[in-house]
Amino acid sequence: MKALSEVHLCIIGTGLMGASLALALRGKVRHLHGIDPDPSAALHFDSFSADLNSLYNADVIVLAAPLRVILRLLPQVGALAPANALITDLGSVKAPIIAAMDQLPPRVQAIGGHPMCGKELSGAAAADPTLYHGCTYVLCAAERTSQAAISFMETLVRAIGAQPLQLAPEAHDQAVAHISHLPYLLSVALMLSAAEVDDERLWQLASSGFRDTSRLASSDVTMMGDVVTSNRAALLGALTRYAAHLARLQALLASEDDSALRAALEAARQARQAWLRYKGR
Amino acid sequence: MKALSEVHLCIIGTGLMGASLALALRGKVRHLHGIDPDPSAALHFDSFSADLNSLYNADVIVLAAPLRVILRLLPQVGALAPANALITDLGSVKAPIIAAMDQLPPRVQAIGGHPMCGKELSGAAAADPTLYHGCTYVLCAAERTSQAAISFMETLVRAIGAQPLQLAPEAHDQAVAHISHLPYLLSVALMLSAAEVDDERLWQLASSGFRDTSRLASSDVTMMGDVVTSNRAALLGALTRYAAHLARLQALLASEDDSALRAALEAARQARQAWLRYKGR
Repeated sequence: MKALSEVHLCIIGTGLMGASLALALRGKVRHLHGIDPDPSAALHFDSFSADLNSLYNADVIVLAAPLRVILRLLPQVGALAPANALITDLGSVKAPIIAAMDQLPPRVQAIGGHPMCGKELSGAAAADPTLYHGCTYVLCAAERTSQAAISFMETLVRAIGAQPLQLAPEAHDQAVAHISHLPYLLSVALMLSAAEVDDERLWQLASSGFRDTSRLASSDVTMMGDVVTSNRAALLGALTRYAAHLARLQALLASEDDSALRAALEAARQARQAWLRYKGR
Repeated sequence: MKALSEVHLCIIGTGLMGASLALALRGKVRHLHGIDPDPSAALHFDSFSADLNSLYNADVIVLAAPLRVILRLLPQVGALAPANALITDLGSVKAPIIAAMDQLPPRVQAIGGHPMCGKELSGAAAADPTLYHGCTYVLCAAERTSQAAISFMETLVRAIGAQPLQLAPEAHDQAVAHISHLPYLLSVALMLSAAEVDDERLWQLASSGFRDTSRLASSDVTMMGDVVTSNRAALLGALTRYAAHLARLQALLASEDDSALRAALEAARQARQAWLRYKGR
């Protein structure tokens, strides 16, 4: 692998994540090339094209499209990429992507990636050079991923201000079902409940608590639809576990077992405070 | 009623909400008196005491304690308050408070209040003079509440930067069950689920989406325990409606009916965008 400062890097998909990556990598790579049918992020790149063939001389290729698009593009990118190119992605579910990476021709390298950051906004207009600062950036090796490819990605991840963390794809997908995909569906169900009541007073009284708890429901539906259906089994497991906790809270409230209810509220509060302390390390 | 600038105002309970109210009212009333066993907010007041009897010359008395404490204090405050004093509160559930206000002696006035703002933090150390800025402040009249008392409270509410909204207590309690107490229990169930899995990778990968969706689980348990048990019937109704939406999402995911699932995600997204536009008015 070349050093980071020497690589021609190509980002395919220049929405929020891809355009933010370009801004974060400016001046840190030799050449930054963008590929997207929508040219709105073109100014953030040294060169830009709508044509996938324009990746022909890239050393590193980052797929920053929605999950299904990544899965569709991977074989094409594998065929077009020069020998020894490194292909990586930013997809939110890793097992299907790693399985597709294992099918790539042996003349290219591949490694999965998932930066644990984002916004409910989408598109290049929301791009932010600091989006990756301080985030955990998961790296998932495929069968043939070399140590050199892992080291290169760790350097790139640190260069954009993030922390690399190697995980098996299944471990990643289990974890994000609980802490990312489940919270999204909670927000969706909350908005659907409120919309069903459809009383103007609800909308008038809803404040910061509702705003935060419902924020993820504003996420891009194409992206999140791909994500939840691609992580179906793990997400169904997380949903079942969550629904059981919710049903228990409901039963305690209905049976007026207020001391057990308060104990559950206290356990949740302590778990969250412990997490905040852990993240504060 | 005296003009706002002429009143002796007494705040009972000087935690986050009471101390923030004192900061917001500085220079806008003649005298600001605080009552709390904990003197940590004393500097925000013209006078301060741990003794309830010290409210003897207050024109306006604000009960800013947890809900059960308000219900316990109301008869005492009604007995101690001077003739024509106005008693109000900041409690999050209004029907039980208005019922208790209806039992006060006829020589005092009373009106319920609930400012739709707050933080997951508690205590005077988190006090903020801008906490009430831009929030909807619900006013609930009791049986004998005079128009003069309503007008006075509307002036006070506008003076701290909030918008008054008159509602019947039952309408208020129904609405907050959906947009405040339900989101709290969602956050609690999310934290209990994650704590049950208890895998360090979860805590490592959890990011801004998890942080926001779980924020309310950090709320003060004494306060929120009172709130959810005091609004039991409305909250159980909201929980049942919410659980049905969650179960439908789970069924769509399990049956691989991805187009119906995407339609539900899209409906939730549009409902939230409509709310953001409504709040932006």
